[in-house]
Amino acid sequence: MSASLILYVDHVSQPARALSLLCRAIGVSHQEKFINLMKGEHMTKDYAAVNPFKKIPAVKDGNTLLLESCAALRYISSKYDTSGKWYPQDLDVRCKVDEYLDWQHLNTRAHGMGYFRNSLLLPVLKKTIPDKSVVNGHKKELGRIGRDFEKYFLGSKPFISCDHVTIADLLAACEFEQPLAAGYDWQDPVISFIQRVKSEIGPEYDKVHSSMRELTKSLSEKLAARAV
Amino acid sequence: MSASLILYVDHVSQPARALSLLCRAIGVSHQEKFINLMKGEHMTKDYAAVNPFKKIPAVKDGNTLLLESCAALRYISSKYDTSGKWYPQDLDVRCKVDEYLDWQHLNTRAHGMGYFRNSLLLPVLKKTIPDKSVVNGHKKELGRIGRDFEKYFLGSKPFISCDHVTIADLLAACEFEQPLAAGYDWQDPVISFIQRVKSEIGPEYDKVHSSMRELTKSLSEKLAARAV
Repeated sequence: MSASLILYVDHVSQPARALSLLCRAIGVSHQEKFINLMKGEHMTKDYAAVNPFKKIPAVKDGNTLLLESCAALRYISSKYDTSGKWYPQDLDVRCKVDEYLDWQHLNTRAHGMGYFRNSLLLPVLKKTIPDKSVVNGHKKELGRIGRDFEKYFLGSKPFISCDHVTIADLLAACEFEQPLAAGYDWQDPVISFIQRVKSEIGPEYDKVHSSMRELTKSLSEKLAARAV
Repeated sequence: MSASLILYVDHVSQPARALSLLCRAIGVSHQEKFINLMKGEHMTKDYAAVNPFKKIPAVKDGNTLLLESCAALRYISSKYDTSGKWYPQDLDVRCKVDEYLDWQHLNTRAHGMGYFRNSLLLPVLKKTIPDKSVVNGHKKELGRIGRDFEKYFLGSKPFISCDHVTIADLLAACEFEQPLAAGYDWQDPVISFIQRVKSEIGPEYDKVHSSMRELTKSLSEKLAARAV
């Protein structure tokens, strides 16, 4: 019998990687249906029947459909994580997981993705050169985000909400990886934080990150070849 | 003894109103400390000691500090709502509350606030005229948001996640009110949805919305006087 939990993902997407890694880490039986973003498969009629917003990721579990990745991370942990560590029940810990998941939308995600898109993806697709002022705007914000992450979210703890990894850390690491692959120079403690999350996950971490890293390498080469 | 739960709010802010209304609706003893946004009190050293991000709202409860409003709505409901209705425990209902709370950041909130700021607030503060192309961009997105809200989030239900009001509905109504006050012409089912949330809350709803409506009226008058 096939698993009832279905992820619609492309691992070049940060939240899609977080969802795939969560399911693998907690060992829940699930299917991953790959929707190729670079080929525009998220814009097809078939996929719109799954997700009318035509975005990746989406999660289906029986009759439950979730089109928002943070809601899906909470749902999968709550339903399938028997360890209880990924989305802790303790309210004082959980509220700090929630706080980061809410904060990252307009911070880590917006500017990490903004940097990736504007420094690499869009220039290659549109055959233009990167708009320096836009890229520098995202770079400045990523600098501020790194400082906020260090001072407010991490402090002296190894992870965001407590002494162990949660869905907030997993999403944070997957988001940090995107501008990192595109050449953004994260400093410590972000770099050592990513390493800690990676060791918690094990070999699946790099496996799930490989297609994004390959895409980034190929985009960089195309951009560099054009600049010569 | 003063309440341990402290909200730092200005009711001209949508999520600040949602937090104030939630506390009043569930009857939890709390203090509201008013930080006047129009006077720039959120930028003072005193307030930065509470919220280093210098934003409204913030919530303190003993040693717990929350700087994100959705996380604070979840926390207050989980801790203080004895009815259990505002943030239901049932996972199938809760995940739909979470889904809306995650979706609204880049949708209802981004474009409702974008419309309010660009059609009224910024032109008055900067003594310019509204940038039509920016305002129309937000208007177009609000049209799409109304349709997504109707088709995907509300469907045939009276509220977002089930047959009763939750924190998702409360925040949605508070966000819808901002562009509405600034002249955006919401249609049904958004208008009747706002009315349903209002009836669930009672007289506090309009009371908490009054300062935003007064501000909007005064901004509109200033802008109209300049145009004559």
